[in-house]
Amino acid sequence: MNRKPLFITIEGGEGSGKTTMIGRLSAYFQNHSIPYLLTREPGGIEIAEKIRSVILDPSHTSMDARTEALLYAAARRQHLVEKVEPALAEGLTVICDRFIDSSLVYQGLGRGIGIEEVWNLNQFAIGSRMPDLTLLLDIDPEIGLSRIAANGEREFNRLDMESLAFHRKVREGYRLVAERDPDRIQMIDASKSPVMVEREMISVLERTVLKGF
Amino acid sequence: MNRKPLFITIEGGEGSGKTTMIGRLSAYFQNHSIPYLLTREPGGIEIAEKIRSVILDPSHTSMDARTEALLYAAARRQHLVEKVEPALAEGLTVICDRFIDSSLVYQGLGRGIGIEEVWNLNQFAIGSRMPDLTLLLDIDPEIGLSRIAANGEREFNRLDMESLAFHRKVREGYRLVAERDPDRIQMIDASKSPVMVEREMISVLERTVLKGF
Repeated sequence: MNRKPLFITIEGGEGSGKTTMIGRLSAYFQNHSIPYLLTREPGGIEIAEKIRSVILDPSHTSMDARTEALLYAAARRQHLVEKVEPALAEGLTVICDRFIDSSLVYQGLGRGIGIEEVWNLNQFAIGSRMPDLTLLLDIDPEIGLSRIAANGEREFNRLDMESLAFHRKVREGYRLVAERDPDRIQMIDASKSPVMVEREMISVLERTVLKGF
Repeated sequence: MNRKPLFITIEGGEGSGKTTMIGRLSAYFQNHSIPYLLTREPGGIEIAEKIRSVILDPSHTSMDARTEALLYAAARRQHLVEKVEPALAEGLTVICDRFIDSSLVYQGLGRGIGIEEVWNLNQFAIGSRMPDLTLLLDIDPEIGLSRIAANGEREFNRLDMESLAFHRKVREGYRLVAERDPDRIQMIDASKSPVMVEREMISVLERTVLKGF
């Protein structure tokens, strides 16, 4: 099988089953003997890790939203240059857990900077390296959060109820972002059973490969 | 004296006398009882200092030019929000030693990213807060470097001769940047005596205040 390796990103809110589906996707590549790399920012890249630790330092309560967006973009750039690009150059398909669309949703909409501004910033960071395919696991956050509770991962508590409004905004944000880029971002109904979600995901993936993306 | 405070930035290559002229400018404001703040990035702002230390860490030899530009922009943003904006809001005139134009020259041209790209990035970082006036101290680097030698600050050695080409590029870069923004950036002939340079600088400053900038 001689082909250009895919750069795939996966996005989705809490309880969307992102971790499970990344596992299924990895299994698919293993079963088809397709060499791949699974990563997520900052991904063990020293400079990116240090940048991320500045973002996440709990003492930095005064961090401005744009400073934060710039730092995420900087960590993205270094992770891309040091990890994603070399893997693609070696012929590995790359699966990245969250990428530019997370920034559009969480910084652009969540922190109120605006999608276009964060899009332009990220263009500076990633250059021409857009994902060939982005799998967006879409789910009603009420279902997503109750799933987490049902799995006993943690209690579905008052805080979750309060944050439901936030998770609804995240979902709407992802839908907006997907509308801007319907060829690249494939929305998958994540409320179905894992088997059905996996089937749809693989079907989307195979269509993308056939199209030559 | 009731007026909108000025945001002034000062730029210039090695041996341009920037430090001396910042001192003279400060003395002018003191003599005229104009409250001012003298600063430079990262300026003691904790988040900005931490970002700068990531940039300057000598172990980070693999840092990509765009990562570096993003980090400079992030430190700029936080310094602006935490130090420059509050000072201006209090009515202080702000003198900042280097600002956006240094990035245009050193990252945009020096590191080959391109002036327009670094300009757009910095617009994200500073928003509408452009300097009201930028004093650019322009000098032939051969004169600038020989001045440093004459002052006994350090030996004018083989390394300086080799780096002359670099300093010439920096000067040309500043001139290019000044051409893009001739109203804001006032180029001052820094090859003259300190008294003459100071006189020109103050004359430019007073014209800017009279114009209502």
